[in-house]
Amino acid sequence: MSSILSDAVIDQLFRTARTQNGWTSEPVTDAQLKALYDIYKMGPTSGNCQPARVIFVRSAEGKARLLPAMSPGNQEKTKAAPVTAIIGYDLEFYEHLPRLFPHNPAMKDNFAGPGKEGAAQAAAFRNGSLQGAYLMIAARAIGLDVGAMSGFDAAKVDAEFWAGTKVKTNFICNIGHGDPAKVMGRLPRFDFDEINKIV
Amino acid sequence: MSSILSDAVIDQLFRTARTQNGWTSEPVTDAQLKALYDIYKMGPTSGNCQPARVIFVRSAEGKARLLPAMSPGNQEKTKAAPVTAIIGYDLEFYEHLPRLFPHNPAMKDNFAGPGKEGAAQAAAFRNGSLQGAYLMIAARAIGLDVGAMSGFDAAKVDAEFWAGTKVKTNFICNIGHGDPAKVMGRLPRFDFDEINKIV
Repeated sequence: MSSILSDAVIDQLFRTARTQNGWTSEPVTDAQLKALYDIYKMGPTSGNCQPARVIFVRSAEGKARLLPAMSPGNQEKTKAAPVTAIIGYDLEFYEHLPRLFPHNPAMKDNFAGPGKEGAAQAAAFRNGSLQGAYLMIAARAIGLDVGAMSGFDAAKVDAEFWAGTKVKTNFICNIGHGDPAKVMGRLPRFDFDEINKIV
Repeated sequence: MSSILSDAVIDQLFRTARTQNGWTSEPVTDAQLKALYDIYKMGPTSGNCQPARVIFVRSAEGKARLLPAMSPGNQEKTKAAPVTAIIGYDLEFYEHLPRLFPHNPAMKDNFAGPGKEGAAQAAAFRNGSLQGAYLMIAARAIGLDVGAMSGFDAAKVDAEFWAGTKVKTNFICNIGHGDPAKVMGRLPRFDFDEINKIV
């Protein structure tokens, strides 16, 4: 039986958690990244397709490859972040479905082959985005902060990091311990009734 | 300072939480749906764009409109679920950016007008999917179970529920208290090194 989690937990995951723009020097270890993956991999995807692919950029060499593709306003914080996750989605995710969804081998046929490219793109992008959200929430669950970014040249990132694959960059997310002094003011949210209905 | 959340919390959100296929008769109240929204609305979206729009289908009349659009395998569980959330994304989300992202009125220009349809579609689908993931994790945080589905006729759902808007259905998710007897066996996940790198 699930319980209602404490306010402190929900604050840490959603309510007081904030997108970070500055970072302390405290590192993020391999063990933390693997612990992070072991949590977010459990989030649901349709047909268990798991299309997200992630490159965690931590070295100075890796950052030097990435920074020229970031928008000017995102370069300094990306350089300062202990880790920058390039979150991609694999357009050929369906090749793994016979293993990931073994009770229904026909699942692959929904996405493989001529005329199925649109279905594969939509499933990869939708489920890869769900997994990106799971990654951010899981990072907060293990005491890390995140700062997601859409301001980058996707074609450049794809060429530099995903060459020779069918993976496309979805979004990029700094991970570490945030500097509270660089957090922006909280922006407004819609009221429930403006955008939702109960019917 | 964030802490590492307890194993029990992470289990409830990710590790022992399971996609549900059967439901008890315990209802989901308006207050629970509004509490759910007040949590997941705080999850980050790019430019604070918040493109997700949700119709929570709870009445018999609402279910009767939805069920013919569900795949045969999803009809019985959708009928039994206390609430079924139709999670859509608004292709005209950018109309709200001057209010949601007031310090940068030019943000709207990235998505509004001729030639920007692809950018608007990608941002709406990516961020609407992130918000769908936040919804599922937030539901688990308040002691509810979820069961997301991609098996439905999106054109039929769009026509029935989003007519006269620019909202498109993303995915559909049952919400309530799951029947543990109807949970499937856990499916495999990739190992870290198969799909991720640290560089």
